[in-house]
Amino acid sequence: MDLLNNHRTIRKYQQKEVPDEVLKSLVNSGCRASTTGNMQLYSIVVTKDRANKEKLVPLHFNQPVIQSAPVVLTVCADFNRFIRWCEVSHATPGYGNFLSFLTASIDALLVAQNICIAAEDIGLGICYLGTSTYNAKEIIEVLNLPKFVFPIATLTVGWPDESPAQTDRLPMEAVVHNETYKDYTQEDVKKLYAYKENLEEYKQYIRENNKESLAQVFTDVRYPGKDNEFFSEKILKVLKDQGFLK
Amino acid sequence: MDLLNNHRTIRKYQQKEVPDEVLKSLVNSGCRASTTGNMQLYSIVVTKDRANKEKLVPLHFNQPVIQSAPVVLTVCADFNRFIRWCEVSHATPGYGNFLSFLTASIDALLVAQNICIAAEDIGLGICYLGTSTYNAKEIIEVLNLPKFVFPIATLTVGWPDESPAQTDRLPMEAVVHNETYKDYTQEDVKKLYAYKENLEEYKQYIRENNKESLAQVFTDVRYPGKDNEFFSEKILKVLKDQGFLK
Repeated sequence: MDLLNNHRTIRKYQQKEVPDEVLKSLVNSGCRASTTGNMQLYSIVVTKDRANKEKLVPLHFNQPVIQSAPVVLTVCADFNRFIRWCEVSHATPGYGNFLSFLTASIDALLVAQNICIAAEDIGLGICYLGTSTYNAKEIIEVLNLPKFVFPIATLTVGWPDESPAQTDRLPMEAVVHNETYKDYTQEDVKKLYAYKENLEEYKQYIRENNKESLAQVFTDVRYPGKDNEFFSEKILKVLKDQGFLK
Repeated sequence: MDLLNNHRTIRKYQQKEVPDEVLKSLVNSGCRASTTGNMQLYSIVVTKDRANKEKLVPLHFNQPVIQSAPVVLTVCADFNRFIRWCEVSHATPGYGNFLSFLTASIDALLVAQNICIAAEDIGLGICYLGTSTYNAKEIIEVLNLPKFVFPIATLTVGWPDESPAQTDRLPMEAVVHNETYKDYTQEDVKKLYAYKENLEEYKQYIRENNKESLAQVFTDVRYPGKDNEFFSEKILKVLKDQGFLK
């Protein structure tokens, strides 16, 4: 539990390889995660080659962590392998639909998180890139992902070359609901976000972005509605192309 | 890593409570998982009350594990809290779209897996119920989930009253691709699934279901296309109702 509680995202890595044997043991632990009906609806594409990493950089909005990390893992929701198995087994697969996409995504994300914990357990550092879904279309092209495969998460892995402070979290009562969901009043929300809003780093962040509130930095700068709508349309189209939506 | 490698799903629990303090520490470790832009787009609904558990049982297709477990956790993708914070912060939220649903689901699933590992670390057992998405509509009603909240995973937690054998996994080369995805030939698939298909438990499973191959048990009995299509339509409608799809 200490391991989980001490998690920090690591964006700077030593120029030191992660041996294949180590990587294998991480994936092995990853695959012990629970999986729907033991179908293992995921694949992991390992990128170590410098030229291949460079192809991924712009697809993750030029986040430098991709180049600095010795290993990039693209964790994919994958129904392709299972469907191929059905085909050689005289079984008629019915997995070209949205439920199957969700099921495979859930499987894949549990594996991704297991890999992170296994990595941190042996002193490696990790960083999630939330950008896989944004540019799924281009990632599919670069990684040559077939139909029924979708890149749901990207992780970088390497030996840490920084020891950042831990980021803040909301108080636990913000995220836990007993028996049924109790919606938040304006007063609740103000109270739950007060600690965060009073942190000096965020106050500076508001000033730097020339905004009035921290929430405005999110809505106007980091995750604006217009971008979210644009990428939503793009992702839905990819899901159609990949066979998961009609 | 041993902890991850020894994972077993536990479906039988001792009749012994999980103290609130223990549960809090699990959720606390859960919340240390990486989260998109530190937005923490998730909520966890804790069900301990017997009557409330009984309401959930049919929504998870009468799996007895819900009643036998002292605690049921419904892990939700939640943009509602964040949107409410935007509203009190004079910020205009743009999160009623599919990207936001995916982002919040990813956040929620990383927390769910962290909770599982934290639980196993102190000797508790867990079981994922893959059925949350199937009956999201009814779960939303029972748990009173508002717009912009979607139940993406359900977990049971309790002190184990069984020690099952570990389930099989495909060989690692089945799930790992180096640099780019290498699609599976018929020969590849036969080789990768050979070990599984030769396990006596699955041979018996095929006979019990009166099928010709293990894959047919999946396609015809456990996860047939017709059901997958039905639940896909149902989920897409829920996503519209919850504000995540146009």
